[in-house]
Amino acid sequence: MRNMEKLLVVKVGGKVVENASSLQAMLARFAAHEGRKVLVHGGGVMATSVARAMGVDTTMVEGRRITGDKMIDVVTMVYGGLVNKRIVAMLECMGLNAVGLCGADMNIMLSTKRPVVDGIDYGWVGDVKRVDAHALSTLVEAGVVPVLAPLTHDGKGHILNTNADTIAAETARSLASRYDVTLVYCFEKNGVLLDPGDDGSVIASLQLRQFQELKASGVINQGMIPKLSNAFKALQSGVREVVITSVAHLDDLSQGTHLQ
Amino acid sequence: MRNMEKLLVVKVGGKVVENASSLQAMLARFAAHEGRKVLVHGGGVMATSVARAMGVDTTMVEGRRITGDKMIDVVTMVYGGLVNKRIVAMLECMGLNAVGLCGADMNIMLSTKRPVVDGIDYGWVGDVKRVDAHALSTLVEAGVVPVLAPLTHDGKGHILNTNADTIAAETARSLASRYDVTLVYCFEKNGVLLDPGDDGSVIASLQLRQFQELKASGVINQGMIPKLSNAFKALQSGVREVVITSVAHLDDLSQGTHLQ
Repeated sequence: MRNMEKLLVVKVGGKVVENASSLQAMLARFAAHEGRKVLVHGGGVMATSVARAMGVDTTMVEGRRITGDKMIDVVTMVYGGLVNKRIVAMLECMGLNAVGLCGADMNIMLSTKRPVVDGIDYGWVGDVKRVDAHALSTLVEAGVVPVLAPLTHDGKGHILNTNADTIAAETARSLASRYDVTLVYCFEKNGVLLDPGDDGSVIASLQLRQFQELKASGVINQGMIPKLSNAFKALQSGVREVVITSVAHLDDLSQGTHLQ
Repeated sequence: MRNMEKLLVVKVGGKVVENASSLQAMLARFAAHEGRKVLVHGGGVMATSVARAMGVDTTMVEGRRITGDKMIDVVTMVYGGLVNKRIVAMLECMGLNAVGLCGADMNIMLSTKRPVVDGIDYGWVGDVKRVDAHALSTLVEAGVVPVLAPLTHDGKGHILNTNADTIAAETARSLASRYDVTLVYCFEKNGVLLDPGDDGSVIASLQLRQFQELKASGVINQGMIPKLSNAFKALQSGVREVVITSVAHLDDLSQGTHLQ
């Protein structure tokens, strides 16, 4: 096995980025990690609020945003502009050399517009076809930290809305042939909980079989299922470790739930 | 004198980017230019319309936008997200390898928040301090086309709103020590007009002295004055040629007004 350099892919969700002070605290913990790293962010909460301010209705189906003509403009603005550039400006202030990118930039994330299935038309939503690991690693090797917005493109001139968890997993997978990758999903809970009401009931180590059992028994709830499915898929594709943890513990990756 | 490679810096204004079909036609002409190039875009018309939709008032003083807390979010969304990413996706579709950047990205454009002068507080507006020609030329030499949004940062974590004409001129100036730079200001008129009402009255060649005379006599109007002042400053800093032309003539730079 080659002796590969370590690389951290951290995904932070919409609730963290929504608030300037929680965002800053998270970024300080992210910046404190030495070495090669990539940040993937969400922004759904803010997109919903900007959409509301502009009189654009938000419709979610199974936790996913229906992205019509007006909504793709809103998420392009919020994810690609407001959230992404705000993060980059803060990271630069912390001394990191960061670059904010969406999938169209340098063609780094190409996707396919999701077809209408079972009568559900998600609109301008893209399923990732490929992540350009070469372009990303060129930036990383130049000492740059890519900050990825949850937007891809179809190669035909359209921006597509793509789930940030999926982008993080696909990015980690694509980089796994070049780096020793740790993928971190960072959110408001301490990890995967045995009892959703008890933040102390973190499952420290989770195997695929146990995940399937907990899913079957209903312990692992709906929002967590796609996140964990993505994460196990990444693990099977060569990502060394996946950690699900809270923003507060981003500086200590021994905490949280470790997928194995 | 060194034999330098040619590089084109093209600035397109808000009225061109506002409309998808005029934007696409302009980008096709831009893409047709072989060789090294940088695109700088505006987006003011769209920012005003998004601001209105969100209930944020727009106040302009001498053609410049007062940029309060809410307005900086609007322009960050519109310039850095909607307009910038839309352009990048279209250029990628045309086979160009483009990357959309604001000044915070890789710290390429650092600026100073404009102080309150004569009682006018422009808010989150930045005056360019330096453009990182090394970072830009590294991208250009890698075959990438930088697409610059009219946003800079102060190095303290804040995005600042900066005039796109100024960004184009400062970018051209900073690159003039490395390249044989032509700066093109592309807008809806055919060039600098002797008679504003006659689109055929283009001044083919304009010298600084003539500009000063036409400014004094009032032939060159208010909006054109800062554009031309910026352009002459760029020329004096080593930019080889400045062309003021229409979008329709972007593919033939022998047209329009040439500054000398």
